Amino acid sequence: MKHPFKSIPGSITAPQGFLASAVFCDIKRLGTGKGSNKGPKRDLALIVSETPATVAGLFTTSQICAAPVKLSAARAGKGRAQAIVVNSGNANACTGPQGALDARQMANLAERVLRLPAGHALVASTGRIGVELPMSNVRQGIREAALALKASAENAHAAAEAIITSDTRTKEIAVEFKLGGRWVRIGGICKGAGMIQPGMSATGARPAAAPAASLHATMLCFLTTDAAVESRTLKAALTEAVANSFNRITVDGDMSTNDTVLLLANGRAGNEILRTRGKDGLKNAPALHVFQAALNHVCLELAKMIVRDGEGVTRFVTVRVSGAKSFADADAAARSVANSSLVRTSWFGGDPNWGRVLGALGYSSAKIVEEKLDVAYSIPGRKLLIYALKQGQPTATAFDTLCKLVARKEFDLHINLNLGKAGAVIYAADLTEEYVEFNKGDVTDPASMGG
Amino acid sequence: MKHPFKSIPGSITAPQGFLASAVFCDIKRLGTGKGSNKGPKRDLALIVSETPATVAGLFTTSQICAAPVKLSAARAGKGRAQAIVVNSGNANACTGPQGALDARQMANLAERVLRLPAGHALVASTGRIGVELPMSNVRQGIREAALALKASAENAHAAAEAIITSDTRTKEIAVEFKLGGRWVRIGGICKGAGMIQPGMSATGARPAAAPAASLHATMLCFLTTDAAVESRTLKAALTEAVANSFNRITVDGDMSTNDTVLLLANGRAGNEILRTRGKDGLKNAPALHVFQAALNHVCLELAKMIVRDGEGVTRFVTVRVSGAKSFADADAAARSVANSSLVRTSWFGGDPNWGRVLGALGYSSAKIVEEKLDVAYSIPGRKLLIYALKQGQPTATAFDTLCKLVARKEFDLHINLNLGKAGAVIYAADLTEEYVEFNKGDVTDPASMGG
Repeated sequence: MKHPFKSIPGSITAPQGFLASAVFCDIKRLGTGKGSNKGPKRDLALIVSETPATVAGLFTTSQICAAPVKLSAARAGKGRAQAIVVNSGNANACTGPQGALDARQMANLAERVLRLPAGHALVASTGRIGVELPMSNVRQGIREAALALKASAENAHAAAEAIITSDTRTKEIAVEFKLGGRWVRIGGICKGAGMIQPGMSATGARPAAAPAASLHATMLCFLTTDAAVESRTLKAALTEAVANSFNRITVDGDMSTNDTVLLLANGRAGNEILRTRGKDGLKNAPALHVFQAALNHVCLELAKMIVRDGEGVTRFVTVRVSGAKSFADADAAARSVANSSLVRTSWFGGDPNWGRVLGALGYSSAKIVEEKLDVAYSIPGRKLLIYALKQGQPTATAFDTLCKLVARKEFDLHINLNLGKAGAVIYAADLTEEYVEFNKGDVTDPASMGG
Repeated sequence: MKHPFKSIPGSITAPQGFLASAVFCDIKRLGTGKGSNKGPKRDLALIVSETPATVAGLFTTSQICAAPVKLSAARAGKGRAQAIVVNSGNANACTGPQGALDARQMANLAERVLRLPAGHALVASTGRIGVELPMSNVRQGIREAALALKASAENAHAAAEAIITSDTRTKEIAVEFKLGGRWVRIGGICKGAGMIQPGMSATGARPAAAPAASLHATMLCFLTTDAAVESRTLKAALTEAVANSFNRITVDGDMSTNDTVLLLANGRAGNEILRTRGKDGLKNAPALHVFQAALNHVCLELAKMIVRDGEGVTRFVTVRVSGAKSFADADAAARSVANSSLVRTSWFGGDPNWGRVLGALGYSSAKIVEEKLDVAYSIPGRKLLIYALKQGQPTATAFDTLCKLVARKEFDLHINLNLGKAGAVIYAADLTEEYVEFNKGDVTDPASMGG
């Protein structure tokens, strides 16, 4: 597949005019981190545009959403912002009126030390639920981070590290492409690991066809671009990109209280402003198409990194449902399979257990007719489908052949309902003993509580 | 609580006029069981009434249901039966037209060797999905089982053993009570272990408010009574009992293709026939009330045995939702919590992680208002609630106090949504490494495939 864009090193500071920094301010109250060779992991990051930017945001559709989500959704809705303050170690969720005050104080302090207009700083948090933020630590962290801001790839990497929790590695990406003769870049960082099945919308309100469930340990994603994009156009572009990436993944079927995707566009590339409406709408269409393709790519790659690095994950499975009567049916069928404990444990065991796949399809809300079902496996990127089931009947494919395919670290599972023309893809992972071991927590440490 | 009935030893042969037997006929094709000290586990059972009985059945609402389910649902719908043939080791699911023929042949052979009227034998199967039954073994098994029929408790126990798969123990119960001066008994056996979240109806069709998901490894339950009960009345009574027992449990949120509950009532106790309609309706009401209470008790105790013996289960948690706007909301909220991987792993760890409970409530389809939520824990059967959260705010309860409560093998989790008057209870279990280890399967053994 030929892309109109190319990958480049770095992430959120790759686009012009963006700075980042990260510090350790002990939000989990672990003490000074004595005895660690590496020093304590950073837990607070700043992402700043040197100039005001348009902003788009998508947030968890959970009915219980954290204070920073409420604040950032309201501010992003106004369309302009310049900075994002993020902390890990504490989700500032289920913290009542004090949590709302703390989120506002984080944003306001960032605005003050960075000399930004009011309302131009956004906030995101991930970590323990139900515990108030240690605000004196947070305040000190914001002041230190403001002094450490740089446009370097090192600082972007430090920010990527600061936002992770149970992730085993940082998640960064950047791409470059031309818009009307100008070089433009998009960069991004994200974190995930567990409590992962996001279903995000711009207001946090649940759209009619929202997935039934979403992320734990929270997924956060911060995107920057030096493209000039009008605010409503930016929101539409991000909505499309997220619909086909972060809203298509599941690790454990749990949605978080804190899921957040933010995109800042500061226009420093000097391209003609992208907008879908008004007199420039038609003229912009080809450039907008390139921008959308690049943004889709960035979001999908980051989303896949989350699944591959999910808690305890050993296998990455792309569930492709086709032939459904409607998208809602295709989506329901794919999620039913991708979230089934029994299907996911069989993936862990390298067991091509299509009986369990059928079981999960049978109880999904999608219309299913057993006698019409095709089930096949394939190697990602290759066209050859190995059928286990055709028209509801087992094929002659040798059990060993299926075993070899599903023993791979990554494979595709194809389900054709043969009832219509709609399809849906879900990026999923296996369920392992390591996931259980990790999430059973350590009750000798109250800090293990929460998302 | 004073019951109008008392527990007695035994199970399905405790009521008058019922016989049972069980044999090993190698349905899994393991060979002769050489090298086993205990001898091979029995895998085929017969349950027979000496005289024709009224029958009621409830079956999986999965859209992919096994051949024996289709046959038994059709036959039970006619209201009269006399025998049940059950096998473990093979689910006869996703087996196409051959599977339908095999299920019918099992029933027809039982009728012939037992000299029953046509259509009076029902069938149930549990085990591998997608593999045809070894019918010569099954035929021999049915003939041997017919010769071994007895009314003894030993034979009932052998049948209870024959139907289990991944269960670690048999599940049996019997109760006795008086109806209009006559002693009446109800007995039952069941199996479960995994693929457990049944949602059953009489026709297998999904009722409007059916749970979204149900059982794997299948739940089967066979009930006998010597009460005389008119067929539609029996069906109504079983529907009520199952709605409050088997349809209220979840082990892993997976519904099976084979879930079946059957109840035979042969009238040998000589009570006046119980019926809700016609001229006897009102006169029968007190007796029917006693019968319903006893049947509810039998079903609930058997259902709880399934959860307690679920695959890898170490904790039994009763999730009690109250204050919901509707039963559908209460049910959705309870199932969202009871099926959350993160909530269930925290139970395994003895971690009172109410943050995850809130997370699961947040993404449920039930209406939730964070600021109104109460969350509390209690010891089963005791009235004292230990609150973790009141009106959305953490209480002053010490973390250690909560830890001690959830470290118990059984505890109750109370969630008051404070939005209305509806409630729902779900009996749930933790998610453990042993569950994953068990279900990841053994791909060197194709026999490990399926439910």
